Amino acid sequence: MSKPSYFTHSAPFALENGGTLPELTIAYHTYGELNASRSNVIWVCHALTANSDVADWWSGLYGPGKVFDPEKYFIVCANMIGSCYGSTGPRSIRPDTGVAYGADFPLVSIRDVARAHVLLFDHLNLVEIALCIGGSCGGHQVLEMAFLLPEKIQKMALLVCAARESAWAIAIHESQRMAIQADPTWANNDDQAGEAGLRAARAIGLLSYRTIEAYRETQTDADDKMEHFRAASYMNYQGEKLVRRFNAQSYWQLTRTLDTHNVGRGRGGIAQALSQLRMPAFVFSIQRDLLIPPYEQEVLARHLPAAEFYSLDSIYGHDGFLIETEVLERELGRFLPLRALRICP
Amino acid sequence: MSKPSYFTHSAPFALENGGTLPELTIAYHTYGELNASRSNVIWVCHALTANSDVADWWSGLYGPGKVFDPEKYFIVCANMIGSCYGSTGPRSIRPDTGVAYGADFPLVSIRDVARAHVLLFDHLNLVEIALCIGGSCGGHQVLEMAFLLPEKIQKMALLVCAARESAWAIAIHESQRMAIQADPTWANNDDQAGEAGLRAARAIGLLSYRTIEAYRETQTDADDKMEHFRAASYMNYQGEKLVRRFNAQSYWQLTRTLDTHNVGRGRGGIAQALSQLRMPAFVFSIQRDLLIPPYEQEVLARHLPAAEFYSLDSIYGHDGFLIETEVLERELGRFLPLRALRICP
Repeated sequence: MSKPSYFTHSAPFALENGGTLPELTIAYHTYGELNASRSNVIWVCHALTANSDVADWWSGLYGPGKVFDPEKYFIVCANMIGSCYGSTGPRSIRPDTGVAYGADFPLVSIRDVARAHVLLFDHLNLVEIALCIGGSCGGHQVLEMAFLLPEKIQKMALLVCAARESAWAIAIHESQRMAIQADPTWANNDDQAGEAGLRAARAIGLLSYRTIEAYRETQTDADDKMEHFRAASYMNYQGEKLVRRFNAQSYWQLTRTLDTHNVGRGRGGIAQALSQLRMPAFVFSIQRDLLIPPYEQEVLARHLPAAEFYSLDSIYGHDGFLIETEVLERELGRFLPLRALRICP
Repeated sequence: MSKPSYFTHSAPFALENGGTLPELTIAYHTYGELNASRSNVIWVCHALTANSDVADWWSGLYGPGKVFDPEKYFIVCANMIGSCYGSTGPRSIRPDTGVAYGADFPLVSIRDVARAHVLLFDHLNLVEIALCIGGSCGGHQVLEMAFLLPEKIQKMALLVCAARESAWAIAIHESQRMAIQADPTWANNDDQAGEAGLRAARAIGLLSYRTIEAYRETQTDADDKMEHFRAASYMNYQGEKLVRRFNAQSYWQLTRTLDTHNVGRGRGGIAQALSQLRMPAFVFSIQRDLLIPPYEQEVLARHLPAAEFYSLDSIYGHDGFLIETEVLERELGRFLPLRALRICP
């Protein structure tokens, strides 16, 4: 990724679950220029192991003539608190102790992440967001930003996400955390902590991001071997690839952050909460998504007052939101310039 | 489980992948009496973490008036090589070294397991099997037994299984092995080796045995909590439960055994291999099975010359073969006494 910018909020940042971060650094990227009326902002929220460099990880949507067009839009993306790409996280140095938080990093909720985004929004002197967009837990951040900036977010795009983290997703995350915890180095206060556990956790995640059909098509051995299977090598390769760029303590913490997601908490439940978000919403669903399946997006589309629903059959499953950029280009290109196509009272 | 019987094959047992077990012990259960014509044998093959006590783990099908009726049938089940329920496995003492095999236990194929079953079949002085039945990798053993005893197996029942271990299942197993390997105690030569890793591996397995819908219905929290979720506790509880009754080295080895499954190996491919199995076959599929989905049973039904196919929609997913015993009672009760309903040339 290219080098991010940093915004430091020097005051204590109180967390929803009761903890406090003595100070908060947010790493972020911007692309393009803010126009005179400050009306051309696209705000992108990233998913679990991504970072603030949207142009890098969502390149299919980025560039002149694309949805994320830096010649037309001022595009902003901030790294999630708890991540290891520049925002305050487990490997950050605690100002009070002079050592890294490590495994003691406090529980950060999706709402905390969204509140941090809003601090950056204010810092950048923004007044509105033309499109707030995210996939997976990026979509969860979009929803929480919509509660914080209900008049300022003109439109939102919610890809393969949910109103609440499901029991299923929590169970997947717990199995990932159990794999990390099986590696006794994971709680060490150093950058290499938990690497073997993280490899396994990534392998588990990968299963939920892909589909049976994709494995059949791309990972089936042609010959009659009895060991050293292609599918097994692939899992190790992907685990190793993540370990080189990500930290086990961030992974462990961020999966806990994901589990906190529930737009209905303290707002009278999901239906009542979603009914408050009146901006046009593009809800994107992938039929074979094993992690956050269509059922979840149907809940969003049913309860958001101004939702349109797009369902795609993609062999890529959950990961399709990063890969099926041709469909997204077309649908977002249509959605972005317009006001609500349908407002339900 | 009740105490098994033991059969010891004192000669070296050569393994398909090139290794040798200096001797082989097979733990097994029998129920009921062999009739005079020796024609009333039901042979049951168990799945990954089960044992030879069918009456215990498949109790819904066992008992007077049931499919596994000990008043009518002589029911046999043998523990898989590599398991920890009495057959030779990683915790068995090597006769040549006087210490347990531990993590050095050789790779055993599904065909090796089936050949061991046939040694027991001969030892018990049996001449035919009225019904050979198994679910999941139990079904894989049934298929390989059918190649070894093509004239002696009258009928077979193949539940939620496949002609070949899929790339998807191998990927799941590899993520489980990665979790076990993340626990550095896993290769210790003692009975407690790899417990933390096994907990995580079991949690991963559980995801593949159940369904999103089952988690939604039974593991969703009613309140607005931000941590200590029910779904997470459930995963830990299930992991802990397995650790109390199973061994991490057996688990690691048996998943490798599962991966060897391929009826087409050395037999001209799957279609040609299956065409040789001419006994009536009952192929049972569960629509929401995430581990060995209907696609796999369709392959079996398409290529077995005398297959009938039953597809069930069960919220239990893959585990449904252990739970949906009412349907299985009815369908197997119908299938068992009859000869082939349909023979395709």
